[in-house]
Amino acid sequence: MGNIRIGLIGCGVVGQGLMQLLHDNAEDIEGRLGGRIEVRHIIARDTSAPRGPHVDLAMVTGDPSAMFADPEVDIVVEIMGGIELADAYVRRALEAGKSVVTANKALLADRGHALFELAEKHGVDLYYEAAVAGGVPIIRVMREALASDRIRSVKGIINGTSNYILSRMHAEPGLDFADALAEAQQKGYAEADPTLDVGGGDAAHKLTLLATLAFGAQLSMDDVVVEGIDRVSALDIEFAQHFGFVLKPLAVGQRQADGSLDVRVHPALVDKNAPLAHVEGALNAVYVQGHTVGPVMLSGLGAGAGPTAASVVSDIIDVGRNLASQASGRVPERGFGAAHIRRPAVQPIEAHSCRFYLRFSARDRSGVLGRIASALGEQGVSIAQMEQTGRAQEPVSVVMLTHPATEGAVRAALEQIDAHEDVLRPTCALRIEDA
Amino acid sequence: MGNIRIGLIGCGVVGQGLMQLLHDNAEDIEGRLGGRIEVRHIIARDTSAPRGPHVDLAMVTGDPSAMFADPEVDIVVEIMGGIELADAYVRRALEAGKSVVTANKALLADRGHALFELAEKHGVDLYYEAAVAGGVPIIRVMREALASDRIRSVKGIINGTSNYILSRMHAEPGLDFADALAEAQQKGYAEADPTLDVGGGDAAHKLTLLATLAFGAQLSMDDVVVEGIDRVSALDIEFAQHFGFVLKPLAVGQRQADGSLDVRVHPALVDKNAPLAHVEGALNAVYVQGHTVGPVMLSGLGAGAGPTAASVVSDIIDVGRNLASQASGRVPERGFGAAHIRRPAVQPIEAHSCRFYLRFSARDRSGVLGRIASALGEQGVSIAQMEQTGRAQEPVSVVMLTHPATEGAVRAALEQIDAHEDVLRPTCALRIEDA
Repeated sequence: MGNIRIGLIGCGVVGQGLMQLLHDNAEDIEGRLGGRIEVRHIIARDTSAPRGPHVDLAMVTGDPSAMFADPEVDIVVEIMGGIELADAYVRRALEAGKSVVTANKALLADRGHALFELAEKHGVDLYYEAAVAGGVPIIRVMREALASDRIRSVKGIINGTSNYILSRMHAEPGLDFADALAEAQQKGYAEADPTLDVGGGDAAHKLTLLATLAFGAQLSMDDVVVEGIDRVSALDIEFAQHFGFVLKPLAVGQRQADGSLDVRVHPALVDKNAPLAHVEGALNAVYVQGHTVGPVMLSGLGAGAGPTAASVVSDIIDVGRNLASQASGRVPERGFGAAHIRRPAVQPIEAHSCRFYLRFSARDRSGVLGRIASALGEQGVSIAQMEQTGRAQEPVSVVMLTHPATEGAVRAALEQIDAHEDVLRPTCALRIEDA
Repeated sequence: MGNIRIGLIGCGVVGQGLMQLLHDNAEDIEGRLGGRIEVRHIIARDTSAPRGPHVDLAMVTGDPSAMFADPEVDIVVEIMGGIELADAYVRRALEAGKSVVTANKALLADRGHALFELAEKHGVDLYYEAAVAGGVPIIRVMREALASDRIRSVKGIINGTSNYILSRMHAEPGLDFADALAEAQQKGYAEADPTLDVGGGDAAHKLTLLATLAFGAQLSMDDVVVEGIDRVSALDIEFAQHFGFVLKPLAVGQRQADGSLDVRVHPALVDKNAPLAHVEGALNAVYVQGHTVGPVMLSGLGAGAGPTAASVVSDIIDVGRNLASQASGRVPERGFGAAHIRRPAVQPIEAHSCRFYLRFSARDRSGVLGRIASALGEQGVSIAQMEQTGRAQEPVSVVMLTHPATEGAVRAALEQIDAHEDVLRPTCALRIEDA
């Protein structure tokens, strides 16, 4: 097999990691590929910025025209991020008959289905392993390794920032969200504007991609229930651990018995012995339940130059192997063929049923507990466990774990409870995710 | 894409699982593949045995000639097991220009390299995802998802029987190996003759396949240091836990600084917080360290009709996609191209360096401890922690954890120690596997 020639759009941290990877791993890559990967063009806005020891600055240009026009470029690699300009560049590459490898989850969540159809129309590949969970090869596993199975559910820790913050809050009792976030920002695990990460939007982008691969479902962001980890307090971590759980930032997609999909991103209580409970810090993991294969879990580093570049280059190799065999398009990039991808029915969150963790902040007054229990009972929500903290200061915390109940019933009960004069703050309700 | 037509050699538990999978998951498979998988021939020795609701007994025959001669059969699936006859059938299929999917690790460990070369010669695929770790897609991940990286090490729990037995011994203090094995046999987790599983041979077969994928290394079974879990006693489990470890049946392949390979199968102490420590019961897991991607771990069910059939059928889909694109051979089945696969230098076990767990069985007499410590010291083996059990009965157990030492030095010291009259039984030495 000959060499693979690529053009790179974007040469920040990941681009420089990619250049370093090509340098460090050249021998192994050639052993596997029978050829080398040659970078022919590098497109970046600032052509004079320093870019580390492995980037030839003479190759860096702000104008992509020569790259798109170069018939020798086999694959365009988009690692610039953002949506509008990236979209324009990816389209231009596909329309020029070039395959594309991207790490851009926001782009694919927003424009993916149109771009995949464009790739199909032009008979080229659009690969995106690095878009979900960095170095964890969940895209390829869902698309190919689990192609034989009917997937029941996909549950992932797919935002490293959120997992790092919650892990720190477990490791240091009393550490509150704001302080853990500040520390994560200082250490480079969180952006200056952390909204997309801690608010759940980033994980929701990735979940829409996983849901297509798992279920052939075309989802928009509006279909996903998204709640951030900012609602979690040090007190909740403490109570969760007391009851044998840990709090994890989950993204969940699962088929319901009626054929609808349950798709959610939120912090959840997970049994401390469950597989996802051991995924700590900046690690990502995805736990898949198949009808026939049973559980399969993958974990690894969810971000960073190395893991992201490794996934990008594995895609380049895969696409390059397709090119060498004149087999572009041999696998549908979304797992299912275009004709089999459908807008699914999405289960309303009110119909979702699970166990709940409820923390009430109440006045220390007799009868309060009874009123809370009655309100829950009226909605058919049954209490499994209860714990009340010391009565040193108001409000006192009353924590209850429920038996499985629908979210609609729990919300109706909480509306009534939170309106009561003896309940001093809105109740904190968190879902318990059972395997 | 049209339908894929297969011939099945072997129709035991896995074959029946495969037929059930094709029935249960037909809709999802068609959505991914754009066609169906049709079983055209089933070869089995006993043509009258009952084979469950999804096998058409009229299709079962003992003579494979019609299958090999049928030009409509695209893929031959070998799930009969054993070596000689399976080898003959796989050769016959490859020579007839048919791609092959197999789950047979013993066959591939023994004859694999010749068979892969035969497949290459005939321009067909020979896929084997189910041969290692059942439903865990480690072959495809090593071969494709991690194709960009230089692999440093592969550490796996890849024998479910051994992991089940050691897990039970942890769960029930005092349970000895023989009793745990008997229980595993009764529950169907161990064969009547468990030698290949508990002796480490099965894991060694699989390790040779992983070492080729990871390092481009062609190993024979003689290259692998193999020790079974039968050497582990209830006492060792108890001490390991006391020191913060668990005992796991590991298969390890790693590159050494001098370019040689370290390849071993044995029970090892693993930190109780390490990723592999949480892999319980019949689960399998493989932990890969890449130069650029960092750690990647996969886990799932290592055996059983469903997980094995799921991996076999994912291979059928992958090979079928190659056929549809006329791209058979697009990926080298062993990860590296034939020209890049070499007989590696293998590190002698005496040169292997790690921390050791040593349990001495000694007479309760003053001076014994000093003599043990001196013998270790003379070989440069330094003691990190020591614990002596109660002195109620002889022999007393003296347990030491060493700092990293070469195995040669430890063995030399133990030879001297075990020859002493106050040491009543051969010392139990177990390796500690650090991440």
